[in-house]
Amino acid sequence: MSDDLCTRPATELAALVRGREVSARELLDAHLARIERLNPALNAIVTLDAEGARAAADAADAQLAAGRPVGPLHGLPVAHKDTHQTGGMRTTWGSPLHRDTVPARDELAVARLRAAGAIRVGKTNVPEFAAGSHTFNTLFGATHNPYRHGLSAGGSSGGAAAALAAGLVPLAEGSDMGGSLRNPAAFCNVVGLRTTPGRVPTHPAPIGWSQLSVQGPMGRTVADVALQLSVLAGPDPRVPISLSDPGHPFAAPLPTELTGLRIAWTPDLGGRVPVDPAITEVLMAQLGVFRELGATVEEDCPDLRDADEVFGVLRAWLFEASFGDQVRRSPDSFKETIRWNAARGAELTGADVGRAEVAHTKLYERVVGFFERYDVLLAPTTQVLPFPVEVEYPTEVNGVEFDDYLGWMRSCTLVSATGCPALSVPGGFTADGLPVGLQIVGAPRSDRRVLEVGHAFEQATGHGLRRPQLG
Amino acid sequence: MSDDLCTRPATELAALVRGREVSARELLDAHLARIERLNPALNAIVTLDAEGARAAADAADAQLAAGRPVGPLHGLPVAHKDTHQTGGMRTTWGSPLHRDTVPARDELAVARLRAAGAIRVGKTNVPEFAAGSHTFNTLFGATHNPYRHGLSAGGSSGGAAAALAAGLVPLAEGSDMGGSLRNPAAFCNVVGLRTTPGRVPTHPAPIGWSQLSVQGPMGRTVADVALQLSVLAGPDPRVPISLSDPGHPFAAPLPTELTGLRIAWTPDLGGRVPVDPAITEVLMAQLGVFRELGATVEEDCPDLRDADEVFGVLRAWLFEASFGDQVRRSPDSFKETIRWNAARGAELTGADVGRAEVAHTKLYERVVGFFERYDVLLAPTTQVLPFPVEVEYPTEVNGVEFDDYLGWMRSCTLVSATGCPALSVPGGFTADGLPVGLQIVGAPRSDRRVLEVGHAFEQATGHGLRRPQLG
Repeated sequence: MSDDLCTRPATELAALVRGREVSARELLDAHLARIERLNPALNAIVTLDAEGARAAADAADAQLAAGRPVGPLHGLPVAHKDTHQTGGMRTTWGSPLHRDTVPARDELAVARLRAAGAIRVGKTNVPEFAAGSHTFNTLFGATHNPYRHGLSAGGSSGGAAAALAAGLVPLAEGSDMGGSLRNPAAFCNVVGLRTTPGRVPTHPAPIGWSQLSVQGPMGRTVADVALQLSVLAGPDPRVPISLSDPGHPFAAPLPTELTGLRIAWTPDLGGRVPVDPAITEVLMAQLGVFRELGATVEEDCPDLRDADEVFGVLRAWLFEASFGDQVRRSPDSFKETIRWNAARGAELTGADVGRAEVAHTKLYERVVGFFERYDVLLAPTTQVLPFPVEVEYPTEVNGVEFDDYLGWMRSCTLVSATGCPALSVPGGFTADGLPVGLQIVGAPRSDRRVLEVGHAFEQATGHGLRRPQLG
Repeated sequence: MSDDLCTRPATELAALVRGREVSARELLDAHLARIERLNPALNAIVTLDAEGARAAADAADAQLAAGRPVGPLHGLPVAHKDTHQTGGMRTTWGSPLHRDTVPARDELAVARLRAAGAIRVGKTNVPEFAAGSHTFNTLFGATHNPYRHGLSAGGSSGGAAAALAAGLVPLAEGSDMGGSLRNPAAFCNVVGLRTTPGRVPTHPAPIGWSQLSVQGPMGRTVADVALQLSVLAGPDPRVPISLSDPGHPFAAPLPTELTGLRIAWTPDLGGRVPVDPAITEVLMAQLGVFRELGATVEEDCPDLRDADEVFGVLRAWLFEASFGDQVRRSPDSFKETIRWNAARGAELTGADVGRAEVAHTKLYERVVGFFERYDVLLAPTTQVLPFPVEVEYPTEVNGVEFDDYLGWMRSCTLVSATGCPALSVPGGFTADGLPVGLQIVGAPRSDRRVLEVGHAFEQATGHGLRRPQLG
């Protein structure tokens, strides 16, 4: 029973707690027991506050007993990404510079989860400052893939994905600049949504108008992700790009058919990225599912010309603005890839940034035009399968070598540059038993649409139900 | 009767046309006659298509006669800012480079006015590429102030403001980077709204995410501005920053009381700008009106630290991105102030732009905090009274000399940097008979709120009813 509670969807658990069939405390204790048993090998949760969580769970149960109104996540354990500030709980950003940083208050996404009734158990592991799609750092080491010890859980929301896949928590949120919600979801066979910029308002943020890094939900099912999005989304007056739409409609039931939907599929982002053939093979076999659900599927891709340059320039520029001064002050406190990225940012002229934003604008318009012809685009989430944790980053795929540490992440970064929401859902397994992620991309602001498509596919295939074999 | 039609509010004229009390053709002919009589001295309208307008007005009347549904601006003559692309009609941007440019199609704002039933009569004069708040260029010369020939009508939407004040059109739209909808409204005793960025989606735009330049309505009354906003506002999928809210609610009736409203007033933007004492005197005398309407008024101002630097850097950066290549190719085709601004932009590093955006973000947060304590902020729209058309730009106010051509516009540019909507309404007249503008600034996205306050003030004072004495 205890382990069963730890693998059920958050949507079900929320109903059980609200209906007082399971207490928040019972639910928490089941998860704490599982964390104790499984986390040492996974290294997914790097800060744990069992005592604080128990007090919060007891308070949640008292609230229910008193008949007081409760939020949609009432009593559900949650672990927060360690780059997200948690009031009174250590927040390291995976950096030795913040080994002992304890923020005074929750940042907005954390506060919204708490306000919705979630019970904070701790923090999930990240790469240093969430840079790169493999979760390791000098403070805590690497997070392991629940499907195969010794392999990467992806990143940067790698601790979150591994914790979800292993049943350590039913809820976790993350962030995504270049794939950080999608890549670990793919590596760990869970669901991650890169939201439209502004859908989940980020506060504080160094540059309020930046479109690159977004926060968003991760879960074991698409409906869990939608439920979490319903409390993360909605405007905040301090966030200039926040979309006006309220969050609660995201919790509405999702359809299981896709009748009449026009779907495009690209195996390689229009020929722009090399992809492991094992991934292509798994995903090609899924296309028939969409047709059976009533959709048309044809191979096509938006013109992603300049997307790589746009992403590279704007990322470097943001790194310089965010870390430049700190890196120059204490270069040894940063890993080499961040030093490289900030140095690249420091070389940019204003005109370089301007040209990137002009190209960014044209890219956006081309993508909006593409989505007048298609409802969603399917693509591989990752170009590679989970790799050994000792590898800092893959330097080649399919014999194609990359210039930099971002090359192997392009199947995600090119999409980040478009401003589109993108969901990674379990897309099947290789013959060797490794999970493969399917990326579902929609027009800007169509977060609901990609959830709908993901849910119908998930229900039809059940790939997400193949859970890892753990201790 | 004919001239009477040319000075009534657009809201009334729209009702007369819709009720078939006045035909669109009759309304147009009255305005064309007035343009013929008064425009030569004012130089407000620089391109006129009387024939095309007559055909459109006849078609509008036929549509009504056939009982077909019509838009909210049905049959109202409109003149478009000459920096806004009009399909099939010359669009010069006030630049010799575009002396003969005829765009293939309307840009979005123009298309929305047309779709709402407005009848295009022509284009309103602008400074070269809308740079600077005084309307003159080498193609058409200067626009004169309807209240005193020989004085500036302000800018950059100077042709629009003069045309409205003189009754040449009941509707005109403009744009505002550093005051271009507010400054000419103040100089010409009409109403101009700098909208929240994204409220009126701009398409095409060189950089889709820029917060600096916005488009918006101008009119003789606040209700006219609100009516026009109701068709200009609303999301467009091609515009990433467009706000989701529909436009039509802006046309709802505006209140005439301000009971319980908390109003802040600053005579000089918190001590940051010198202001002509004649302006301060006129505006100080208005504060009692707000108290009589039920509001509290106290002197206060948001902390606008860094706003000048933020505006200066982001403007220069946008000029470089928009004009840099062209200026280097043919420097003699640009006025000196644009060459200076683009050159300043070319010197910026990416880090400079990053620092400006970080400061911009902090400024936004401070302003949002300020508007938790106040509903609106009152300030002078301009630091100076209308000056002779021969003066390119004022170089000092109150004995304070400015470093550059933006200095005299700071009462507007500092507000532009905040992201707040700002309405300029007629605020009274100097002893010498020159109009003074009152700037009403609200929290980001509170466009409706500033219209409400402006309308109540307008109705209580009637400053806008003092029309210019013309031929």
